[in-house]
Amino acid sequence: MKEDILPVEEGGVTTPRGFLASGVACGIKAGGKKDLALICSERTGCVAGLFTRNRVPAAPVVLSRRHAAQGRGRAVVINSGNANACTGSRGMANATEMAHRVAAGMGCPPEEVFVCSTGRIGVPLPMAKIRKGIGLALERLSPQGGKDAAMGILTTDTFPKTMGLRVNLGQQEVFIGGMAKGAGMIDPRLATMLCIVTTDADLSKEALTLAARRAAAESFNRISIDGDCSTNDTVLVLANGLARNRPLSPENGEFRLFQSALSLLMGRLARMVVEDGEGISKVVEIQVQGAADEGDAERAARAVAHSLLVKCSWHGEDPNWGRILAAIGYSGSEVDGNRVDIFYNGVQAVAAGARARTPARLVREVVRLPQFTILIDLRMGSGHFRLLTTDLTERYVRLNKGE
Amino acid sequence: MKEDILPVEEGGVTTPRGFLASGVACGIKAGGKKDLALICSERTGCVAGLFTRNRVPAAPVVLSRRHAAQGRGRAVVINSGNANACTGSRGMANATEMAHRVAAGMGCPPEEVFVCSTGRIGVPLPMAKIRKGIGLALERLSPQGGKDAAMGILTTDTFPKTMGLRVNLGQQEVFIGGMAKGAGMIDPRLATMLCIVTTDADLSKEALTLAARRAAAESFNRISIDGDCSTNDTVLVLANGLARNRPLSPENGEFRLFQSALSLLMGRLARMVVEDGEGISKVVEIQVQGAADEGDAERAARAVAHSLLVKCSWHGEDPNWGRILAAIGYSGSEVDGNRVDIFYNGVQAVAAGARARTPARLVREVVRLPQFTILIDLRMGSGHFRLLTTDLTERYVRLNKGE
Repeated sequence: MKEDILPVEEGGVTTPRGFLASGVACGIKAGGKKDLALICSERTGCVAGLFTRNRVPAAPVVLSRRHAAQGRGRAVVINSGNANACTGSRGMANATEMAHRVAAGMGCPPEEVFVCSTGRIGVPLPMAKIRKGIGLALERLSPQGGKDAAMGILTTDTFPKTMGLRVNLGQQEVFIGGMAKGAGMIDPRLATMLCIVTTDADLSKEALTLAARRAAAESFNRISIDGDCSTNDTVLVLANGLARNRPLSPENGEFRLFQSALSLLMGRLARMVVEDGEGISKVVEIQVQGAADEGDAERAARAVAHSLLVKCSWHGEDPNWGRILAAIGYSGSEVDGNRVDIFYNGVQAVAAGARARTPARLVREVVRLPQFTILIDLRMGSGHFRLLTTDLTERYVRLNKGE
Repeated sequence: MKEDILPVEEGGVTTPRGFLASGVACGIKAGGKKDLALICSERTGCVAGLFTRNRVPAAPVVLSRRHAAQGRGRAVVINSGNANACTGSRGMANATEMAHRVAAGMGCPPEEVFVCSTGRIGVPLPMAKIRKGIGLALERLSPQGGKDAAMGILTTDTFPKTMGLRVNLGQQEVFIGGMAKGAGMIDPRLATMLCIVTTDADLSKEALTLAARRAAAESFNRISIDGDCSTNDTVLVLANGLARNRPLSPENGEFRLFQSALSLLMGRLARMVVEDGEGISKVVEIQVQGAADEGDAERAARAVAHSLLVKCSWHGEDPNWGRILAAIGYSGSEVDGNRVDIFYNGVQAVAAGARARTPARLVREVVRLPQFTILIDLRMGSGHFRLLTTDLTERYVRLNKGE
């Protein structure tokens, strides 16, 4: 980490100046678990939103995308336990009511409120509970509420994912905080996950959007657990400008530093999402290099990351590189099977498409580790791509048999 | 079944006139299981071959594709337990030696011998065992050897897949027999599987290729278990002409009858492959209709069939149609979430993108069945596609952790 970018202990969405948050239990989830979170800024700022590319987006995504286009934001309300997806016009009315209720409580226009939902698809939101939850969440807003909010958005996640950074811009200091949830339905382009980032930096909506897009391209767009892209994926970045820094713009050096910090924060949150993937036992980084072009590199990496057979073999700690070669072969990317080299944490397993001379024992030792990197060199050109993924376990299947 | 096409009891590759087969154990697989099969015709005939589109094809695929281009065939030798894939130049030499040894035994040119291998990728073939196996298989060739041959090609399959048909062409009668293996790595376009079909019909290589392509398009290209397309997929159809029928050609009515029979046989074998998918507990037919075009229908059907979350929910007997809508949403096909209808064995679960009025209990009863059909109507156009697939189980993961 650069010395101008420092972690904030127990940091989260309330780390930046002027942000309050809360997380409450309103009965959407069983067992009294927190299931509604609220994040508010003391003043209206600008917002950058990135949304799922799924063509059947959930109602809150449709609503928040509309609000993000207008670009100003004050609050985000999120419920877990129910995705409000595939719920027709009733779903839209419910998402709209959530925004209106928060807006009334904050005294701001409803267009400045963003709504996210995560959980079961196809079931109408229990609005009586949601109304009660929003009331409670407004009452409990606090500058220490970041952790509670992070708890309120979890579904099958096993731990809350939060991070805070202090960025020294020279004359001024700005803070960035974030929280995320993931677990299942994590994949291409904006995984199924929610990520809310707050900052007190002062910058235009355009600069914020640029920084958010770049950070997501290198983080949330580079992870895959099960290849399923959800109806609800959302990344929202709220900037309230309370740091009173010289406004950041892509031309100045402070912006580059801010970009580095935002990329770092989103990268760490994305990694936490993978590490907490449903029922996983391994985190594997796939690096493809030497592809004909970057598109080919990405196709090869995603085919390997999505192959059930490859993922099962990792779970069994079996360095079954033949399955990796097979996946590259059907990925659609240009490949000559007699050229490919494959390395496990630097140990060569495949040389020119066949077993390398390295003792198999050394490769097996690598796949016994909880985290390792597989480097695939196609030796066709200079395209490269990297992707973080996981194994596939019996527990994943068990967890996803029911809800 | 049309009355001109009748099943032959215990039919298989030796059902047609002039075909001999054998299946032996030569020690590639542990426990004395059969692991080498040989199928020979008394006389040379023509051959149609369809091969994996994987760009890292195994050595036997490279060899057999070359032999198929030349179009004449006498024998097929198949070993299981080792795929001879990703084995470099040594792999090619071994596949070539297998063809030469069979050719020497049969007294035919090596170009008339086809080679298939299935099993573990990346391990050199144990040639001493293979040589012994080929010797034994040549000795044991028999007109009753179809079942033994079908046993010899299995990997994790739990039962041999064979079928025989008698086709009444009017003046003459021709026979068609077949065997297949599948289990894991079953997917798009030519699943990972082997299928050998024999017939005593007299027809040109061109007519045979046309019939084989049409039959495969409606059978083996319409099944998917895990989305993995193997390095070794092969369909071979050998026709020796011993029925002495009026040569079939696409212009005559007898060809259409032969085509129906071949399509029926390959369709049944493909279904058996799905029913015997690794660790599966459900066979599900996905029918997409009302898509903007057939490509869109296929994309939607394959996205649903490949979604881990959808497959897990079937295993849990949970009609989680929300996951189906989500998969269609990211399939890349044109879709309006507010139009989609979904039916489970005719019971409507989704109407215009939201829960239908049908009691959820009725839909749950359908997903408790071992086999059911999901009809997805996108209501955008007239494109349609159907696909046979399976659920995903803990057993699949367990089976694929090791080899």
